[in-house]
Formats: sequence, structure tokens, C-alpha cells
Amino acid sequence: MTAEFISVGTEILLGNIVNTNSAFLAEKCAQLGLSVYYQTVVGDNEERLYETIRTALERSDIVILTGGLGPTEDDLTKEVTARVFGWELLEDAHSRERIQAYMEQYQKNRPDRKITANNWKQALVPRGAIVLDNDNGTAPGLILEKGEKRAILLPGPPNEMQPMFMNQVYPYLRALQPEIIYSQMVKICGIGESQVAEEIADLIEKQTNPTIAPYAKTGEVHLRITAKGESEKECRKLVKPVVRELKERFGKNIFATDESKTLEEAVVDMLRDQKLTLSLAESCTGGAVSSRIVSVPGASEVFIHGFVTYSNKAKRTSLGVKKVLLKIEGPVSAKCAKEMAKGGCKAAGSDICLSVTGLAGPGGGTDKLPVGTVFMGCCYNGKTVVNEYHFTGNREKIRQQATAHALAFLRECIMEGVRKQE
Amino acid sequence: MTAEFISVGTEILLGNIVNTNSAFLAEKCAQLGLSVYYQTVVGDNEERLYETIRTALERSDIVILTGGLGPTEDDLTKEVTARVFGWELLEDAHSRERIQAYMEQYQKNRPDRKITANNWKQALVPRGAIVLDNDNGTAPGLILEKGEKRAILLPGPPNEMQPMFMNQVYPYLRALQPEIIYSQMVKICGIGESQVAEEIADLIEKQTNPTIAPYAKTGEVHLRITAKGESEKECRKLVKPVVRELKERFGKNIFATDESKTLEEAVVDMLRDQKLTLSLAESCTGGAVSSRIVSVPGASEVFIHGFVTYSNKAKRTSLGVKKVLLKIEGPVSAKCAKEMAKGGCKAAGSDICLSVTGLAGPGGGTDKLPVGTVFMGCCYNGKTVVNEYHFTGNREKIRQQATAHALAFLRECIMEGVRKQE
Repeated sequence: MTAEFISVGTEILLGNIVNTNSAFLAEKCAQLGLSVYYQTVVGDNEERLYETIRTALERSDIVILTGGLGPTEDDLTKEVTARVFGWELLEDAHSRERIQAYMEQYQKNRPDRKITANNWKQALVPRGAIVLDNDNGTAPGLILEKGEKRAILLPGPPNEMQPMFMNQVYPYLRALQPEIIYSQMVKICGIGESQVAEEIADLIEKQTNPTIAPYAKTGEVHLRITAKGESEKECRKLVKPVVRELKERFGKNIFATDESKTLEEAVVDMLRDQKLTLSLAESCTGGAVSSRIVSVPGASEVFIHGFVTYSNKAKRTSLGVKKVLLKIEGPVSAKCAKEMAKGGCKAAGSDICLSVTGLAGPGGGTDKLPVGTVFMGCCYNGKTVVNEYHFTGNREKIRQQATAHALAFLRECIMEGVRKQE
Repeated sequence: MTAEFISVGTEILLGNIVNTNSAFLAEKCAQLGLSVYYQTVVGDNEERLYETIRTALERSDIVILTGGLGPTEDDLTKEVTARVFGWELLEDAHSRERIQAYMEQYQKNRPDRKITANNWKQALVPRGAIVLDNDNGTAPGLILEKGEKRAILLPGPPNEMQPMFMNQVYPYLRALQPEIIYSQMVKICGIGESQVAEEIADLIEKQTNPTIAPYAKTGEVHLRITAKGESEKECRKLVKPVVRELKERFGKNIFATDESKTLEEAVVDMLRDQKLTLSLAESCTGGAVSSRIVSVPGASEVFIHGFVTYSNKAKRTSLGVKKVLLKIEGPVSAKCAKEMAKGGCKAAGSDICLSVTGLAGPGGGTDKLPVGTVFMGCCYNGKTVVNEYHFTGNREKIRQQATAHALAFLRECIMEGVRKQE
């Protein structure tokens, strides 16, 4: 079954807001096994909206519209969809009651706000439509069914749309689906997108069911394996050998096979499992590695200290990097990265310290030390390993890449260290 | 002139990523005076992509496509657009050289990485197209012109697309426009979106030329004032009184009237002008404030030290926060924020230190101290001010808001301090 989305609203066309509704619906529909081939954004213009809805209903089974259900004259989604279906609008007594109750509640909180007459427009419903109650606003949602075609109208604000979708639309769509869809994620770090693509080219070439879809992120590649079948058991059976094959090919570069697990979570989990504590000594990344570690709930169990030693003075006072080393080797050097990592372990009293020092630009580059040069050190078990990187792009991109590679390097070092202990 | 956008990519259709490219392009096109009536997302499917491009070129003058220019077999945007135009693909020597140089640079960094043959696909160019160099990746952009119609192909990753658009496409589109469009930005921090909307409701109500468009960002609101006219001089004259009026209404909450200036740049500029040095003591933001400061080129002149004191031990050893205070008041308290800021100034030897400590969740909240509670302290001139905030949303959203508000608070404190010295 195919679905497509139409987001109605001039705010999106003008770039005033980012269209997060489509991303939310897309993920949920993928989970439901609906094939989504199109997403469209169109403004509050009657003719363009009419044509867009008509085209969508021709090529897709289910059309989900968000936005344009509000009380103002600009809000046209319901009126235009009813016109496409050839259905008239009638007042729905139940919806009118709910709107009344919602507005009375609202006015208790904001007695200064007037309730305007145009709100009653929201109680008008195309004759024959299924009404979806809105627990977080005034505009009800609607489902219009005609033969095999369905239009689902949802309010635009995400805090109204998302609960309405999950509580009322998701079960409705699930009941329509004859086939079961099951997918599993394989997340890879430390290998580039094109190399991953090449190494799985043969698998992609011959794929039918399941399919493999690669997603490139900064410093990571995600592969989604999706199977269709009559039961979840059957699907799992189809997915399993593909995941096994990928594990064989990418080995320790796979950091997660869990949909929602991030690289920083994988690192924090590893530290927690090994009962290791971490500190970070950052120069050019300026706290970005720390921030990604802290983004993991419960990071406090393993992450004890971050040093953002952006100046030479900070490198000396916090990490004990020698003045003479900074003078002779410079702050962007393998030796400085090594001393930063060693000093971080000592100052924080942590088992591991990862250091990052580099030249993010745009100024300051030389032939010997071009912009994009980054040194990372990892001190663990009294041993310090240093890696040298050369990133390209602007200051932001260099810093993002350095941050992602720092996490991958840290993960590698923990794994290496663990192996040595075994 | 009309423009529309086509985002190509299964990742967007499946909801793996949010389509921020369209929001970026929409804002820039609005600024250029282009009318945007449609945005479409379509997958890496040859026939659907072909139909989508054909329809878009029929109804709009300029079609901007993002994504699908990479090295993999799934990347079809260039091939399909060339087919719509009826143009053949030829290897572009200049692009091949650039790809070679980019990849050699990349390999220096990771000698273990193979450079795969599929990369050369990115040097193929439709005969007659204008090539746009990519400074942050391997896939060049393209402009195809036929009569009054134009297709502009840009890479999907925002850090490649945005600089390419601003440096090469924006001037190109500007030159096509017969009418002069002039716009000025007014960037506000420290006031919420709905309050800003309320305070300018009367101006928006009566607006014709110029117009005021509000854009809500995390912790910031941007107002773009746009005038159309026959000359830039005429436009400036229309914009000036509106900007003056906004300055009167929002006063010191305006941190920039410059298109590209970020809040962190405004803070770094202020510190540099006042010859002040900064340190940061972060707990729940975990280095994110430091990272935003370090994102400003030349931040090293003013930012000397960041302490990511996520554990109580780190707060004690790096910042000298007393054990008894942490025990009685807790690490998320006004007193702890105050001591962190004072301790940061002392440890770093900086003129100013901003501290952030809070509860980002998801766990750990109580009735007295709910998730989202954040305390910030600012020590300057021997005086420490503390603010309390209550943010809503998930861990990520709370941390993002705390980071943005920390910069706004820091700016306010510098301004206050400066006033006291005058």
C-alpha cells in the first residue's frame, strides 16, 4: 500500500519553520510497511492545493495532509479536500461541544484572550468523514474514505498532530495492512560511505527481499535491512543471514545493531561495561566531544571531567603540558596530543583520556601544517596512542568530522585495550 | 519569478533525516524575492524522479534539486535531470581533478581507506551545464539552462549545499531578478517567539512594502524586513524606519542586524572589544556552550578555558566547589551555579566565567526539582549573578535551549558590567 504526505502552509514554503511533521510521518509509515514515494509542501492557495490533493489521490492509496485546519480564512485544507471528494460540509455537534469545552479551559488560564467566532468553523465536517478527536487543540482530525482511496487530515502543530496520529491513525492504518514489515539497523563507524557502498555492492545488486539501504552520516554509515512477509517470524528469518553477513564483512566497525543507539551511546555503554572512567581534553573541538558524551542519559556514571583547553595557558595549567613542548613542537602536534591525554588522565584521575588538538581554520594554516590537521591522543593503561587526521572543508565541517572521528577512535582504543587485557 | 524545490532521497522519505535543506532554500529564495509554491520530496527512483522534475519545470521557472549527486548507484539526480533536458553526460576534466585532489587529501588522513572507482561518476557533467565547485565534498553542483527554465542541482549534505548555494547560486539568482529586493535582518535573543509576535502584531497587520517575516530559532527570533523597489537606495529608505522602530521596541535584546552574525559571534566580538577573557564551567550542557564559542574563528583571543565538570568530583577539583555545598544544596542549585562561576574565574584567571548546571533528564526529576530546571551563574568584576530557567522537552531539546540561553545570559552580563564601568 502506498502513502504520501501533503504539508499545507505558507510558513514552510517561506522557510519560517522546518517541516518536522513529514519526518515523523515518514518514520511511522515506514514502520507500518507503507511505501512512501512522495512528500509535498504547498501553500494556502485553493487551486494549487486542489490540484496537489487530486494528483496525490490518483497515484497513492493514502494521502496524509497536515496543517490548514485552523480557524482562519487561510485555513483551507478541509474545504478543498471535501471539494475533491465532492462532499458537503456539515456542523458536527460532538466536535462543537469539544471545541467549546477546550476554549473554556483555555480561557481559565488566559482570561485576557478573547474567543473569536471563527473558531466554530473548526466544527464543520465533510458529510461521511470519520472524526478524530483532538486532545491538544481545537481542530479535529478527519479521515475520508472513497473506494480504495483515503485522505487523512491532521492539524499542523506537532504537539497536536503526533498524539492524534499515534493514538488514532496508527491503529487505523495498521488494521489496513495485510503484510508485516520488519527492519533492522546495522551502524558502522571508521569506514567511509563509498567504501561501505563498494563492499556491499554485490549484496545490493542481488537484493529482493530483504533490501539493504545505506544512510551516510558524518563519520558513520547506517545500513537498514528490511524484509516483508506474512509474519514477524518469517521476516526475522529473512533478515538474520544478511545481518550475519554484514557482521562478517565489517566486524568491529559495527558499533550498533539497534535502531536508536548512537555512537556516543555505544562508547558510554562500553565504558560502563568495563567499569572505566573517561576524561576528555579538547582544543579545536572545543567541548563538542564532551557534549556528545553528555547527550547520553546516565553519562555521569563514566564521564568525570572535560577540559576545554583552547589556549596554551589552559593546556599548561589544566593538563601540565610543558611550556617548552608547546614552544618547540607547537600546540598542534603529535607530542602535544600525547601530553594532553596523559595530563588529562592524571588531572581527572580517570582510566582513559582522549585528547584532540588541531587546526580548524580558516586562518593559521601553513604548508607544513595545513588547516584540517588534527592530532588525537588516547591514554589508557599507562599507554598513549596518537593518530593524525587531515580533514577538509570549512571550520564547521572540520570540527564536526574531528568530533565524530574522536568518538570512533576512542571506541577503537577501548576495544584494543580490552583485548590486551584478555 | 517562481522557484520550487525537489529533495531527492529515500532517507527523507523514510524519515531517517529531517528535510532542513528545503527550509534553508525557502528562506534564501524569499530573501531573493522568488515566489515558492511547491516543495517536493521524492526517492531515488528513476521514473518518479523524471516525472517530478518534468512537472516542476512545467510550472516553475527555477527548480532547485538537492541530494542524489553522490558516488553510489542510487544517486540518480544528475542522470535523470540530463534525460529531462535531453543532454548527454561527459566527463569534466576540471571536476575530475578536484575530486582527485579532494580524495588524495582524504587519504593522507586515512591511508587505510581505499579510494573507490565509483567516485569518478561524480565528474560526469551534462554537456552545456555550468559546474559549481564543491569546497566541502566531492560532488560538484550544476546549473542547466534551457530557454527561461533552469534546473539547479546541489549536493544533499547541508555543510556542502549551504556554502555552495551562498557563494555560487545566490549571486547567480540575484542577477536574474529584474526587481531589486533588499532585506535586513534583526536578530533578537532573550524574548520568546510568541512575545515577539505579539509585540509586532500591529506592524505585521498594516505591512505592505516592506514586509516583516519572523523566523523562530532555538532561543532566538529573527525578523527579516524585506522591501521591493527600483533601486537599492529606494529599498533601503523603505526598510530604515521599520528597523528603527524595531530597535526602539526590542532595544538591547537585539544582538545583530547583520545577516550572518551568530549569537556566539556577537558575544566573542563584545569580549574582544572590551578586552575581556572568558572561561566556561559547564555541567548539563557538557561543553556545548564552549563548542559554540570555539566555532567562532579567532575565539582563542578571548576564550581561554572551558571546564566540563559533569561529576561532583570535577566540580570540586577544577572549580573548588565545596563538598558540603554539593551535599546540602545539590549540584543543581543556585548556590552551586554561583560557586562554579566564581571558581571558574579563579581557576582560569579569566575576567568572566559563565556556569551552567541543570537537570536535562530523562531521569532524576522530582517535584521540587523537575527535569528542565537549569541554573546559570555569571561571575564578572567580582560580582556573581545567578539566573534560574525551566525548559521543556526531551534531553536534547533542554540542552539546546540551555546552550542558547547561556549565550544570551552571558551577553546580558557583559552589557550590564560594561554599563556599570561607564
